[in-house]
Amino acid sequence: MSQLHIFDSHQGSLQPFRPVQEGHVGLYVCGPTVYSNVHLGNVRTFLSFDLVFRYLQYQGYKVRYVRNITDAGHLVDDADEGEDKVGARAKVEKLEPMEIVQRYTVDFHNVMRAFNTLPPSIEPTATGHIVEQIAMTQQLIANGWAYEANGSVYFDVETYSQTHPYGELSGRNIDEMRSGTRDLDGQSDKRSPLDFALWKKASDAHIMRWASPWGDGFPGWHLECSAMSTKYLGETFDIHGGGMDLKFPHHECEIAQNKGATGCGGANVWMHANMLTLNGKRMSKSTGNTLLPGELLSGDSPHLTKGYSASVARFFIHQAHYRSVLDFSDEALQAAEKGYQRLTHALQTLEKRVGGGPAKGTFDVDAWQERCLDAMNNDFNSPILIAHLFDAVKAIQADQNDNSHLGQEGAAALLGHMRAWMFEVLGLHPESANSTGSGSSQKALDAAMHIVLDARRKAREQKDWATSDAIRDQLAAGGIQVKDGPDGSTYSIQE
Amino acid sequence: MSQLHIFDSHQGSLQPFRPVQEGHVGLYVCGPTVYSNVHLGNVRTFLSFDLVFRYLQYQGYKVRYVRNITDAGHLVDDADEGEDKVGARAKVEKLEPMEIVQRYTVDFHNVMRAFNTLPPSIEPTATGHIVEQIAMTQQLIANGWAYEANGSVYFDVETYSQTHPYGELSGRNIDEMRSGTRDLDGQSDKRSPLDFALWKKASDAHIMRWASPWGDGFPGWHLECSAMSTKYLGETFDIHGGGMDLKFPHHECEIAQNKGATGCGGANVWMHANMLTLNGKRMSKSTGNTLLPGELLSGDSPHLTKGYSASVARFFIHQAHYRSVLDFSDEALQAAEKGYQRLTHALQTLEKRVGGGPAKGTFDVDAWQERCLDAMNNDFNSPILIAHLFDAVKAIQADQNDNSHLGQEGAAALLGHMRAWMFEVLGLHPESANSTGSGSSQKALDAAMHIVLDARRKAREQKDWATSDAIRDQLAAGGIQVKDGPDGSTYSIQE
Repeated sequence: MSQLHIFDSHQGSLQPFRPVQEGHVGLYVCGPTVYSNVHLGNVRTFLSFDLVFRYLQYQGYKVRYVRNITDAGHLVDDADEGEDKVGARAKVEKLEPMEIVQRYTVDFHNVMRAFNTLPPSIEPTATGHIVEQIAMTQQLIANGWAYEANGSVYFDVETYSQTHPYGELSGRNIDEMRSGTRDLDGQSDKRSPLDFALWKKASDAHIMRWASPWGDGFPGWHLECSAMSTKYLGETFDIHGGGMDLKFPHHECEIAQNKGATGCGGANVWMHANMLTLNGKRMSKSTGNTLLPGELLSGDSPHLTKGYSASVARFFIHQAHYRSVLDFSDEALQAAEKGYQRLTHALQTLEKRVGGGPAKGTFDVDAWQERCLDAMNNDFNSPILIAHLFDAVKAIQADQNDNSHLGQEGAAALLGHMRAWMFEVLGLHPESANSTGSGSSQKALDAAMHIVLDARRKAREQKDWATSDAIRDQLAAGGIQVKDGPDGSTYSIQE
Repeated sequence: MSQLHIFDSHQGSLQPFRPVQEGHVGLYVCGPTVYSNVHLGNVRTFLSFDLVFRYLQYQGYKVRYVRNITDAGHLVDDADEGEDKVGARAKVEKLEPMEIVQRYTVDFHNVMRAFNTLPPSIEPTATGHIVEQIAMTQQLIANGWAYEANGSVYFDVETYSQTHPYGELSGRNIDEMRSGTRDLDGQSDKRSPLDFALWKKASDAHIMRWASPWGDGFPGWHLECSAMSTKYLGETFDIHGGGMDLKFPHHECEIAQNKGATGCGGANVWMHANMLTLNGKRMSKSTGNTLLPGELLSGDSPHLTKGYSASVARFFIHQAHYRSVLDFSDEALQAAEKGYQRLTHALQTLEKRVGGGPAKGTFDVDAWQERCLDAMNNDFNSPILIAHLFDAVKAIQADQNDNSHLGQEGAAALLGHMRAWMFEVLGLHPESANSTGSGSSQKALDAAMHIVLDARRKAREQKDWATSDAIRDQLAAGGIQVKDGPDGSTYSIQE
């Protein structure tokens, strides 16, 4: 069997995955900043790492997946000169910042649940780790990589970069960065415009504030991830992930903080999920070329003709590799929906297959499963995995006419593998694959449809085509599709 | 209109409610300790305060509802001598304590969502407020109400009780408490067995620990609520709630901490929700006389003949006043389910009522609404409110035969009030009231049932009673009940 390889953004190449501790994986992913609703680009990033989390578990690893909640707010621009976003919003809405945090944390969890992502193992908050962030800042000062100025503490990038390759992750060099910054003209306490805040002095108007050895203040945005990944995963851990937009400055600063405080760079492997576009263009609120997670599910958007189930959305997203740009469009989603239905119908056919044929079929399930594993072991290549699933669909269809294609044992083995790939790894929702209803309403619908299909059968036996057609039309208007087979008619609801 | 009165556990009497800040309410409720699954008694407590939160909002108050998550673990027994519960479980399961915290926090949120409770405005964690707890401990030492001993800090109950009525909330006096404790026999750093920990020194084996002025340690259990209620609601706020089992020592200690640190006692009004029994006996895991929230919904319990919807469970719980003991039994739940169905069917009848009759009916809706408000203004007396709702059910039924009972305006006004009481205040779920399905499956069922009821109508017109009865029986087997009215037949699904 092939070995898992992951594309390491730091080295810029595919690397064999060797965990720090045999059988265990420490995975850290930068979570949402909870001062506004999560956008679809975030959803893609979290679905990408949900796939990673799920596949590592499928491989038998015990995974500690830490995904933080940035609730302390961070500064508006990368130059660290702006106002605290959470604080600014609080004043406008006359709310306590933690009320905003709560509202958007609840919203984020609702979206994550709607998309059937697994909760991380630990979901630490920035405000929940002030003690740890102060301790790391003290360590950085003690080690000579940071300085206090007027109640704030800054990381000394100029000094650090003399001995460390600051900019290596994002492929920048220090001279270019220097030429891209403005002069400080006495407006800042920083020694160099490249320096970044570890701890910021709180102005009188700043609501979120904590006591520190440097007076009342709040942590810099980059610090929380270094402090929390070190606390829960150790000074050297396996994988750090996030959206590509976080490479610089956020992840670059994280590496500097980790190396400066502990001597270790944190993660062995860096993974970055690529961006989303909509109809070929960058998403942007100002131009209206934007799509929210809720709009995708409800269809309440000028860019969509209808809503799509979360499973269809997941299927669509995993049809692209996480490192590729993914373009959302109504046409592409419709195509994904058709593909998803073909896949789930094939699974249903396989589930209903009554034993028959030889023990082993002509379709080599073991070799097929190896190809599926090879795809995922090649940097979690879900589009190739899905292509292999469609090879299985063809085999299932062929087997309907000639049960020597799968055979008894082959069919059973394929069913187990298909279910695991679809539900455990790709995170598709078993319920939406089988029917839209559940419980008492499904039971009621089955009872009603039993009567309806019986009436239709009788009409057809009496060659009363008018009644038979009228029933079919009325059902179609209600979104029910009837299929006539050798053993009678079955129905399905169009999602 | 009557004014809201609340039973204040501290004064032991009904008191008119006067908020600190006009139009605003600060409400603090002790949340779950997330080292195990939430039990049904907790659910009742949180549903009781969900009702309070909802009714205050219905009354037009802007409510800041703070409900904490106790994730730092607390000591096993009230004497503070035991092992940290979260830490103990972590060693058994070989887990990081915050992994346990995450698992049970997710479970708690799932249960709360299943029971249709509103998320609180802020949901702060104990581990997220270490800085604030250390600061409050320092303040208590500075004010002379606490002392450090061997790396731990204790509240000095003996000194405090000389000038403050320690025990007043729970109706105890200091001499009785003293006689109920063992001697310390040199095993403890406490000066008196009545003292309680504000900060505990962490042994080498203790996982959850933070740096403090007294060395590595962790906060005492009682401290977090004082620190967080003060931070988010102020030194004097409106209402503090919790389960009755928290009166002593937890809430008694909270008052002492608040008074000692700020000079104010925290909440103006203390509310305590009463306990649950099962089949007349105290719930207990060891005797098997226990029922979990999930079992109540699924029916997977030896104590139940079936599962009950969350709305039926809520309806049942709110049929008792929050200060009364509530006994769960299958019979009582079945009765509640019937009552709930009568209520929702009456609402459906009212929704479908076509304009008719005089403008005003003989049923005085305004006076009825006043009675509903009087009930809730009398210490949130939901059972009386529900009795009034059934008065409205009778009026709706009478109006079906003679539309002068409600009249056109009366029916419209009653519909608005009924919906608000049922969905906004009692938190029943609109969906489960109207049907069990939704979206595409409801549309499909409607289409199928249109055909079925049409076929049944034709059979009855042709006096083909065999077919008509067969259809009715088949539908009944699927949980569908058909009702024949003057304008045709309607159907409903039995939950």
